[in-house]
Amino acid sequence: MNRVPYQELEDTIARAFVKAGMSETKARTSARFHAEASCDGVYSHGLNRVPRFVDYLLKGWVEPEAEPVLVRQIGPIEVLDGQRGPGILNALHATDRALELAADHGVGIVALRNTTHWMRGGAFGWRAADRGKVMIAWTNTESCMPAWGGTDTRLGNNPLVMAVPRAEGHVVLDMAMSQYSYGKLQTTRLRGAQLPYAGGFDSDGTLTTDPGAIEASRRILPTGFWKGSGLTILLDVLAAALSEGSATHQIDKIDRGSCTGCSQIFLAFDPERLGSAEHLQDIVDGMAGYVNGSTPTEPGRKVTYPGQNTLTTRLEHRKNGVIVDAEIWQEVQALAGGPQAV
Amino acid sequence: MNRVPYQELEDTIARAFVKAGMSETKARTSARFHAEASCDGVYSHGLNRVPRFVDYLLKGWVEPEAEPVLVRQIGPIEVLDGQRGPGILNALHATDRALELAADHGVGIVALRNTTHWMRGGAFGWRAADRGKVMIAWTNTESCMPAWGGTDTRLGNNPLVMAVPRAEGHVVLDMAMSQYSYGKLQTTRLRGAQLPYAGGFDSDGTLTTDPGAIEASRRILPTGFWKGSGLTILLDVLAAALSEGSATHQIDKIDRGSCTGCSQIFLAFDPERLGSAEHLQDIVDGMAGYVNGSTPTEPGRKVTYPGQNTLTTRLEHRKNGVIVDAEIWQEVQALAGGPQAV
Repeated sequence: MNRVPYQELEDTIARAFVKAGMSETKARTSARFHAEASCDGVYSHGLNRVPRFVDYLLKGWVEPEAEPVLVRQIGPIEVLDGQRGPGILNALHATDRALELAADHGVGIVALRNTTHWMRGGAFGWRAADRGKVMIAWTNTESCMPAWGGTDTRLGNNPLVMAVPRAEGHVVLDMAMSQYSYGKLQTTRLRGAQLPYAGGFDSDGTLTTDPGAIEASRRILPTGFWKGSGLTILLDVLAAALSEGSATHQIDKIDRGSCTGCSQIFLAFDPERLGSAEHLQDIVDGMAGYVNGSTPTEPGRKVTYPGQNTLTTRLEHRKNGVIVDAEIWQEVQALAGGPQAV
Repeated sequence: MNRVPYQELEDTIARAFVKAGMSETKARTSARFHAEASCDGVYSHGLNRVPRFVDYLLKGWVEPEAEPVLVRQIGPIEVLDGQRGPGILNALHATDRALELAADHGVGIVALRNTTHWMRGGAFGWRAADRGKVMIAWTNTESCMPAWGGTDTRLGNNPLVMAVPRAEGHVVLDMAMSQYSYGKLQTTRLRGAQLPYAGGFDSDGTLTTDPGAIEASRRILPTGFWKGSGLTILLDVLAAALSEGSATHQIDKIDRGSCTGCSQIFLAFDPERLGSAEHLQDIVDGMAGYVNGSTPTEPGRKVTYPGQNTLTTRLEHRKNGVIVDAEIWQEVQALAGGPQAV
């Protein structure tokens, strides 16, 4: 297990992005989101995703300098075209616009179309909560999962983010609509383990905890079976309809890597405009106490609300260095033109 | 299996509500929502829920004539206090206000606090879609489910509704956050069957498909394990925060039956104001074709989008009569003062 100081991680990723054609400022911001994802324990969309993002830049699937364009404004709603610019930067712009609109109108909604992979969606929830705002955001994706009752991949995993500010640590949910990601299947298989719960069907249609069998069948399980199947369908059509953008069946035709051309929604509320921030604080503190006060299934187990463990990981990584995969870290250092000069 | 003509069902329920103290108009509207729920195959919140609602009226837990009061208006947002009036009527009012606000602002949001059980949440999604609008709505509830990692009930099942209009049949999701309801556990146990998939933990903490074992432990499973646990927490605090109302831990203290004092959100979009209804139609038709075109797990199985089977059931029931539980039908007829005169 390797540890890298946070700043070295961010700096190295930024250099890799500049070498791949991004301007200094854009590379720096994108690198910060990747580094923060790893720092929060979301390795899949942090350091580990850097080589693929560089590949997309080099292939021209992501336009490094494109910026979102306003298509339409209706009161508290803005529709933006992301021009297939870097997904993090587009989503960041959309988040900040939603926060500004919320400050003006109580609610702010940005529907972003024709964008690219936003990496770790939760980042935008944390950002909103850091600014005292409530956020609901989601993206659609290309298909990677069968609909309930089907065997071929027709649904996206359409991550959903919900965030509420809390002084002692924000409440932030960041969930994809598959029970496990393909990344989780791969890492579990590589260490010769089984999934803790069934993660999909094998090629015979039997529910299984064997990650390799699911990778082979490509029949990953929607979270909650028919429930996640239904929820991901609605998230998809809503994102595409409200942004006048593409739905999963159309993103599949674009076929330029994961999420290229996808549609996203950013919905922010300003608690100061709706009642009071104090009431919100009471609510989330009461919930936190109630959930944390659960009788645990095993002695010593901590029952947590979404975001609680993330913050613990973040603080530990900031102190002791961010955990990195040694091989990927070497690869990214090479993309950056070699290790950082000390 | 008994069948009752739709109109007789609605009329009988209305008479039962009038006898329990509701005015004619309010009884008629409430009865329609119960009858439509059964007609759509959602028996638990249709006819089957009538005796409990009557009981709540008689106990004074629901105020039959109370009407929602405007607490605050901020642009496209209204906060209402439901005064613990009939949950269906409060939610209907909130839905219609959200639709009006959406027509004016593109988006309309009603946050309703201090209301009572809305019965079948999907009804409000169908209503919005019938009027060409997109809707997202949810409610919180008293606790009925342990948080992930806990053994005691601390989370509500907080049903979430999402609806998008479609000419050939709306796309309407209506999902609670538990994998199965207690009603489903009971009916499965009574017919001596097992759940199709694990629905909770037994008293030893083992995942089980045995409905009786879960009823005994009260450890029903959040849909998608930790995912549903997290999602229901966020739905709860958002509903309470935005409505300046009660969260699950506070509803538990009210302790006047299911959902009394709960908080609800109704969020409507007008597709005519956001781009076009034609674009939306293209999106949902494309999705429907894609999902319905899945390769089924067994020959002849139909892979559907949310709402598709509901509509099939509705049309069949309208034609051949609504399926009712004979015993409950007799009970409701008695509450109505006897069977309908023919």
